[in-house]
Amino acid sequence: MNEITAEIIAIGDEILIGQTVDTNSGWIGGELALIGIRTVRVRAIADDRAAILDALGTTTAHITLITGGLGPTKDDLTKHVLCEFFGTRLVRFPEVEQHIVDLFQRMGRSAADLLEANRAQADLPDGCTVLPNMRGTASGMWFDRDGRVFLSMPGVPFEMRGIMRDHGLAMLRERFRPPTIVHRTILTAGMGESQVARRIEAWEDGLAAEGIKLAYLPSPGMLRLRLSAYANADAAEARQRVDRQAGTLYGLIPELIFGEGNGTLGQAVGRLLKERGQTLALAESCTGGYLSHLITAVPGSSAYYIGGVVSYANAVKMEELGIPSDMLELNGAVSQPVAERMAQGVRTALRSHWAIATTGVAGPDGGTPDKPVGTVWVAVAGPDGVSAKLGNFPGSRELVIERAAMSGLNMLRKRLTSSE
Amino acid sequence: MNEITAEIIAIGDEILIGQTVDTNSGWIGGELALIGIRTVRVRAIADDRAAILDALGTTTAHITLITGGLGPTKDDLTKHVLCEFFGTRLVRFPEVEQHIVDLFQRMGRSAADLLEANRAQADLPDGCTVLPNMRGTASGMWFDRDGRVFLSMPGVPFEMRGIMRDHGLAMLRERFRPPTIVHRTILTAGMGESQVARRIEAWEDGLAAEGIKLAYLPSPGMLRLRLSAYANADAAEARQRVDRQAGTLYGLIPELIFGEGNGTLGQAVGRLLKERGQTLALAESCTGGYLSHLITAVPGSSAYYIGGVVSYANAVKMEELGIPSDMLELNGAVSQPVAERMAQGVRTALRSHWAIATTGVAGPDGGTPDKPVGTVWVAVAGPDGVSAKLGNFPGSRELVIERAAMSGLNMLRKRLTSSE
Repeated sequence: MNEITAEIIAIGDEILIGQTVDTNSGWIGGELALIGIRTVRVRAIADDRAAILDALGTTTAHITLITGGLGPTKDDLTKHVLCEFFGTRLVRFPEVEQHIVDLFQRMGRSAADLLEANRAQADLPDGCTVLPNMRGTASGMWFDRDGRVFLSMPGVPFEMRGIMRDHGLAMLRERFRPPTIVHRTILTAGMGESQVARRIEAWEDGLAAEGIKLAYLPSPGMLRLRLSAYANADAAEARQRVDRQAGTLYGLIPELIFGEGNGTLGQAVGRLLKERGQTLALAESCTGGYLSHLITAVPGSSAYYIGGVVSYANAVKMEELGIPSDMLELNGAVSQPVAERMAQGVRTALRSHWAIATTGVAGPDGGTPDKPVGTVWVAVAGPDGVSAKLGNFPGSRELVIERAAMSGLNMLRKRLTSSE
Repeated sequence: MNEITAEIIAIGDEILIGQTVDTNSGWIGGELALIGIRTVRVRAIADDRAAILDALGTTTAHITLITGGLGPTKDDLTKHVLCEFFGTRLVRFPEVEQHIVDLFQRMGRSAADLLEANRAQADLPDGCTVLPNMRGTASGMWFDRDGRVFLSMPGVPFEMRGIMRDHGLAMLRERFRPPTIVHRTILTAGMGESQVARRIEAWEDGLAAEGIKLAYLPSPGMLRLRLSAYANADAAEARQRVDRQAGTLYGLIPELIFGEGNGTLGQAVGRLLKERGQTLALAESCTGGYLSHLITAVPGSSAYYIGGVVSYANAVKMEELGIPSDMLELNGAVSQPVAERMAQGVRTALRSHWAIATTGVAGPDGGTPDKPVGTVWVAVAGPDGVSAKLGNFPGSRELVIERAAMSGLNMLRKRLTSSE
């Protein structure tokens, strides 16, 4: 197979000293992989003429993507060095200048704000193909020389992503016609990577014979499984192959799968609640508001989320959630009866269909031999009663909070899908 | 000045396709900058013999740091390629093997778990200096050849950071004696980067003459200002120079500064509450639990945080916080009187000294001409009354939530420091 390769050059002193984490390169690499282009190298270099020239001169891939160094200030050298490298000079592109003027107007900024430095962002290398930037003033620049493409873009992530989505990815597909890859990304929660791998081992061993690759993409509290197949001539056939294996996977781990694509567990739970016309309330102790944040990070969540109580102090557990003081004394705040009563209490107080409650030891202090750091009780109360689950989550305070919250969302998801 | 340079090679296919974001390189670059070593290039490459050899063979800096590719599986090539590059071979290091055996015991894993593949992690290039890894089984390897140093470390961030902190940084200082740099990082909140820059412009213009550099390090809702000075011979003199300018800066923007070093606004507020023996409660609408999360992300926050109410539905605002329904009807939920009443309501209900309330339009939907997306009222209630502030935060739902929460923390911080 004729493999198409890419490399990425990220320009900026701030990346080299860790002031900015370069998320652009990974995003580009991931998008290219989805259209069958393999990224072979990423380089981060200083915003410095010699460093940029050296990087441009030592590329070997079919495609070189360059991010950064396109701002309006004199620190930003990229387009000048591109001129030097390609033996050309800057010329004013009138349609780009008009776009900059329009953009300033749309953003409600006055004509006085439009400095010559801003207009000069319409000065671009003679002979390049301009990739319009609908979100900013620095254009993308495409050079096709000796069978290889160089694409320079601004470093601001949402501007770069916009240029790639609006133009770059389609132009690269058109120009290089990489083999089509068909993907399906299946979202799972409730089981760790190594356990899932053991459970689907026999099936996974047979994938290679079907020409299908499986990637495990873990993040706290969830695991994405991506199936990919190259389509040699017939994309429909590859799609069928992937769909068949996805179908088998659904049969192997039905209770773990909560969606496909790029969704979050918060979105999946929101969708289920919306479909049923039902509502949710929360009572959080150890997750301290983070579970509520995961729910409300989803646009439109006010349609199903009524609200919640963060009951850090025991007094709040008693007064706002109706936990009897002798129950707290007898079992401790981190216990099954308290978790269940918290969920029932907030469900009653806020009159929701469903409620999730969390109580645990997030650490780093507060652990005991009986209830070490990471011990968390999660309860879900609903129309058909209350259930609770004990978790023992390893890791830092941040990770315990994150895993406890994801565990609560996943318990609710399972209750919602099994109560159909 | 004799500048010491470094470059970083990050090995791993997962970085190239965006499955893993390389946070190691930025961390290393930042730590090296603090000890006066300049990172000139970062490269991410595939876990592939030819790619690793090419990268090693094209380094030019005094120091090359290599991360990744040191796991126990056969995919992990780094140490084999290092042998090839330096013309040496793997030998078993008995003290490293003992360390691996001890580590398995300490982690409570049985002898049966200790595979030959794990013991083989004690096979390291003959002639390298081993940098012990107290957190894992893959050692750091130090090679000093022809006046240049190569340092290979595992890619797991906390193992790599441990090796650098335990050994690497000190050994690099000892080996290259870079010029000492003195730093102070001053944390500010409540004003954006460009406005702060305008306010301290005259002072900033004079810093160069004092041999001091100023870096602006913005993140949502806060801005760090880092002062640095090279110490030519006398570190104490450089320290005095930095301290003098930091003193001037404190005089210029006293109300913006909330701490120094690596702290967060949540920590600063927590420290102030603790010092005063006072407590906090929250009533969140548009921040949806995120403000509570910022408070409870701080270890020990249960000493001063009582809890909170997330009042997403108006019914919760009325019933749990005591907002009169005619106040909601007359002003709308996003209004000064409602924000103030929310803060007072939760302060009374949870009997805290202080309370913060937020109500606003986080978007992307729900905006009106009167109250567009980003309109947020934040109120703080305390022993000396209630105050409120209107914010208009640009950006995505995520950013509006983050900025509104930071604004609330900063308002409380100011109230706490001015009520002394």
